[in-house]
Amino acid sequence: MYMQKAVKANALKRLKSAKGHLDHVIRQIEQETYCIDILQQSLAVQSALRAVDNIILKGHLEEHVSHAMHGKDQQKSIQEIVDVFEKARK
Amino acid sequence: MYMQKAVKANALKRLKSAKGHLDHVIRQIEQETYCIDILQQSLAVQSALRAVDNIILKGHLEEHVSHAMHGKDQQKSIQEIVDVFEKARK
Amino acid sequence: MYMQKAVKANALKRLKSAKGHLDHVIRQIEQETYCIDILQQSLAVQSALRAVDNIILKGHLEEHVSHAMHGKDQQKSIQEIVDVFEKARK
Amino acid sequence: MYMQKAVKANALKRLKSAKGHLDHVIRQIEQETYCIDILQQSLAVQSALRAVDNIILKGHLEEHVSHAMHGKDQQKSIQEIVDVFEKARK
Repeated sequence: MYMQKAVKANALKRLKSAKGHLDHVIRQIEQETYCIDILQQSLAVQSALRAVDNIILKGHLEEHVSHAMHGKDQQKSIQEIVDVFEKARK
Repeated sequence: MYMQKAVKANALKRLKSAKGHLDHVIRQIEQETYCIDILQQSLAVQSALRAVDNIILKGHLEEHVSHAMHGKDQQKSIQEIVDVFEKARK
Repeated sequence: MYMQKAVKANALKRLKSAKGHLDHVIRQIEQETYCIDILQQSLAVQSALRAVDNIILKGHLEEHVSHAMHGKDQQKSIQEIVDVFEKARK
Repeated sequence: MYMQKAVKANALKRLKSAKGHLDHVIRQIEQETYCIDILQQSLAVQSALRAVDNIILKGHLEEHVSHAMHGKDQQKSIQEIVDVFEKARK
C-alpha cells in the first residue's frame, strides 16, 4: 500500500534507533546491569515505539481513512482504528 | 453536538457505575483498607473509563469524522484523533 | 490497616477532585459536548487516578513491604506488587 | 550486579524474540504494508517488552529490594520502584 515518503523515512529512522536501544537492553541483561537501569532503558524503547505508532496512525488517517470514510469500507476502517486504540492501551 | 442515542446511553450507564466504584475507592482510603486492594479497585475504575473512551471514540468517528474527512476540517480532525491517541497512552 | 496520615489526606483530596471531574464528564455527555473535549476530560481523570496510585504504592512500600520483605510473606508481597504493575499497564 | 539465572535466561530469550519482531516491523514499513497491520505488530513488540519488564521487576524485588528494604538505602529503593511504576504508564 502507498505510504507517504516522509512518514516512511521518519518511521524507519526511529525504528532503527529503537532497535539499537533494544540491543543495548540485551547487552545490559547479559552484563547483569542494575535492574532499574535496564527497566529505564526498556521503557525508553517502548516510548520510542509509541512515537512511531503515532506517526503511522497519522499517516494512515491522512492517506487511507479519508478515502475509505465515505465508501462501503467506512465501518471496517472505523473498527480498525478503535481496535488499535483499545489494544494500544493494554 | 449530536451524539448517537445508543452511545450516549451506554457511556452514561458505564460512567455512573465507574463513579460508584470511585466512591468505593474513597471509602476504602477513609477506612484504611489494605493498599493493594485499593490499587486494584482504582485500576478497575480506570479500566472502566478506558472502555467508555473507546465507545466515545467510535461514536465520534462514525458521526463526525466521516463527514469532516473530506472538508477543510480534515487535517484538524486527524490531528485531534492523533492527539487523543497520544495522550491516552500517557 | 495503618496508612500514613499524609498519604491518606493527599489521596483523599485528589480522589475527591477526580470525582468532581468525573461528574463533569457525565454532564458533558448529557449535554452532548464535542466528543474530543469529553475524551480529553476523561483522560485527565485517568491521569489524576494514576497519580493517586503512585501515592498509594509509595505509602504501601514504605509502611508494609519493608516489614514484610524479610518475613514469610515476602513472596506474597512481591507478587502483589508485580501484579499491580502488570495490571496498571493494561 | 547479580541477576538470577532463570530471570536472565527468560528475559534474554524474550528480548531476542522481540527484536526479531521489531525487525519484522521495519521490513513491513520498507514494503509499505497496510498501516493497521504494522501498528498491530508494533503493539505486539511493546506487549512483549512489558512482559520482560515484569520479569525484571520481580527479579529485582526478590534479589535486591528485600535486602535494601531495611538498610539506609530503603528510601532510595522505594523511590526507584515508584519512578519506574510512574514512567511505565506514560
